[in-house]
Amino acid sequence: MLIDQRHLPGDLRIERCESVEAVARAIRELRVRGAPAIGIAAGFGVAIAARDSTAEAVADLFVDLERAAALLKATRPTAVNLAWAVDRVVAAASGCLTIEESRQTTLSVAQRIARDDLASCHAIGSHGAPLIPENARVLTHCNAGALGTAGYGTALGVIRSAHAAGRIREVVVDETRPVLQGARLTAWELLCDGIPVTLITDNAAAHFMQRGRIDVAIVGADRIAANGDVANKIGTYGVAVLARAHDIPFYVAAPLSTIDLSIPDGSHIPIEERSPDEVTTIGGLRIAPDNVRAENPAFDVTPSRLVSGIITDRGVARAPYAESLAALFRESTLSSARQASA
Amino acid sequence: MLIDQRHLPGDLRIERCESVEAVARAIRELRVRGAPAIGIAAGFGVAIAARDSTAEAVADLFVDLERAAALLKATRPTAVNLAWAVDRVVAAASGCLTIEESRQTTLSVAQRIARDDLASCHAIGSHGAPLIPENARVLTHCNAGALGTAGYGTALGVIRSAHAAGRIREVVVDETRPVLQGARLTAWELLCDGIPVTLITDNAAAHFMQRGRIDVAIVGADRIAANGDVANKIGTYGVAVLARAHDIPFYVAAPLSTIDLSIPDGSHIPIEERSPDEVTTIGGLRIAPDNVRAENPAFDVTPSRLVSGIITDRGVARAPYAESLAALFRESTLSSARQASA
Repeated sequence: MLIDQRHLPGDLRIERCESVEAVARAIRELRVRGAPAIGIAAGFGVAIAARDSTAEAVADLFVDLERAAALLKATRPTAVNLAWAVDRVVAAASGCLTIEESRQTTLSVAQRIARDDLASCHAIGSHGAPLIPENARVLTHCNAGALGTAGYGTALGVIRSAHAAGRIREVVVDETRPVLQGARLTAWELLCDGIPVTLITDNAAAHFMQRGRIDVAIVGADRIAANGDVANKIGTYGVAVLARAHDIPFYVAAPLSTIDLSIPDGSHIPIEERSPDEVTTIGGLRIAPDNVRAENPAFDVTPSRLVSGIITDRGVARAPYAESLAALFRESTLSSARQASA
Repeated sequence: MLIDQRHLPGDLRIERCESVEAVARAIRELRVRGAPAIGIAAGFGVAIAARDSTAEAVADLFVDLERAAALLKATRPTAVNLAWAVDRVVAAASGCLTIEESRQTTLSVAQRIARDDLASCHAIGSHGAPLIPENARVLTHCNAGALGTAGYGTALGVIRSAHAAGRIREVVVDETRPVLQGARLTAWELLCDGIPVTLITDNAAAHFMQRGRIDVAIVGADRIAANGDVANKIGTYGVAVLARAHDIPFYVAAPLSTIDLSIPDGSHIPIEERSPDEVTTIGGLRIAPDNVRAENPAFDVTPSRLVSGIITDRGVARAPYAESLAALFRESTLSSARQASA
């Protein structure tokens, strides 16, 4: 079950995805969005495929799971959490000896991914809150909140933790065209939590920085390369350039599952091109001439030199990121190994 | 008569403004917008006030004109063309000896402002076109086109002249939230003229620059201070910062009537704050939570250090602007004096 985010903030609708195809469609159509959340949804998609499989042998079931995995991974190309979660659930099934064990294992790994993500968000919040100055006016872009994760959020996790510590004066939210995740989702989440919010158009962010209205900027991420380059919602790179021009710290908050050490830098991150209709219409309303050509890249890449720090569930990485991110993974593996042997 | 721009591009409606109040409302409600166009409309507003006045003495008529001037100048604070045009028409009436002469003079000066603006736009186009490189991909923001002037446009005048000279490969148009003048008006104008256009969200401009898709940026202006600081549509300042970060020339195109030598720099330009409803709704559709706080500054100020050149009807000014802009006015006055004595 997931919130169909397309109808927020006007309408809080819960959707029950009864098949792997329904999960894939929910991801493709942005009913669920946000890198960690689509990873979690896709993980459950594999578990649903295991449940629904009519295979009578484990090997045949595994073929069904691989077909489900391919379907899910093809929905959206940029967020690495999607492939990461799908691969993790499928890999867990590969060691199973019976169909029933495969079904239980895929479900429990999917559930664990969701549980771990919630814990990661709280850890990100704890690591990030001390970076937010007292009485801070914080700018955020898109939605890196509870809706984009298993709960609490990444960038909004830091904001929630900083707010709990009494450090937040105001959160300035970019509306985030074309899909308006800032206006529809982030503003709604912050209002629900009683955190002071001011909504602006994306165009107004530079003016707010110029007028001294922003102390720090913080965003989420869809994929982070080994060198610290960050793919995130279109417009993020512009915010990062503007923050640098105004000497405003620019932080990225994401769990380790968003970091892709297999690619050296951001040039290897595929950027999803979505339908031009998202640009030329809003909620079914046509806002541009009928026959106009439009382009709609859904993400951009912020080079790591513009990133003041990457706030992860395992701590804050600083430049040079090639070293600091690799070190977080080494510590994470050690700590997992220690937990496993304990 | 003016085009009610709120209904474009879907519907081309001509509105007949029968009273000075109707003109003031048309300006306030953005039926007509663009610094030169609202100046022209307001000039005709004074002429309409002269026509409609029931005064029987010239002194009483002049009181009516001053009341009309105050009404018109209060509609929008940022564009200096508005006050400039109103003052010019009222001043012309001040020398008139009869009511009939006042009516004829105000009308003929209003008509002359419109005629001169059209000529200015063509001159801006001629001066600016050589600055556009061969095969250029040009970014523009908001609408500085025929709709925002008496015709041809300022920034779009340069683009039209460059296109006529075969230099334009593509015009990339920022949609320009909140009122979407880029999506609704600029895209429409360019399509009507057969100039290749690609519409993007404001968020995508930085990504396009990063990918080498933009060779030059050009915008209009609502007011330019004596030192070359430029007030223009919200988001312009962000475009200027981004252009500088990518070594892309950033030009401003405007007639001398947009330059306000009475203020030393941009900090003296009043920035209009418009209704938050423009941010929280689009075409009547609610896109944000009901009780969210929003801010809606309609303009921002780009410091002259980010401006590669100011393309006027009298030539191109370059830094240091305090000297170059003042020189354009001296030459303009000399040339007017020469014309008058010829």
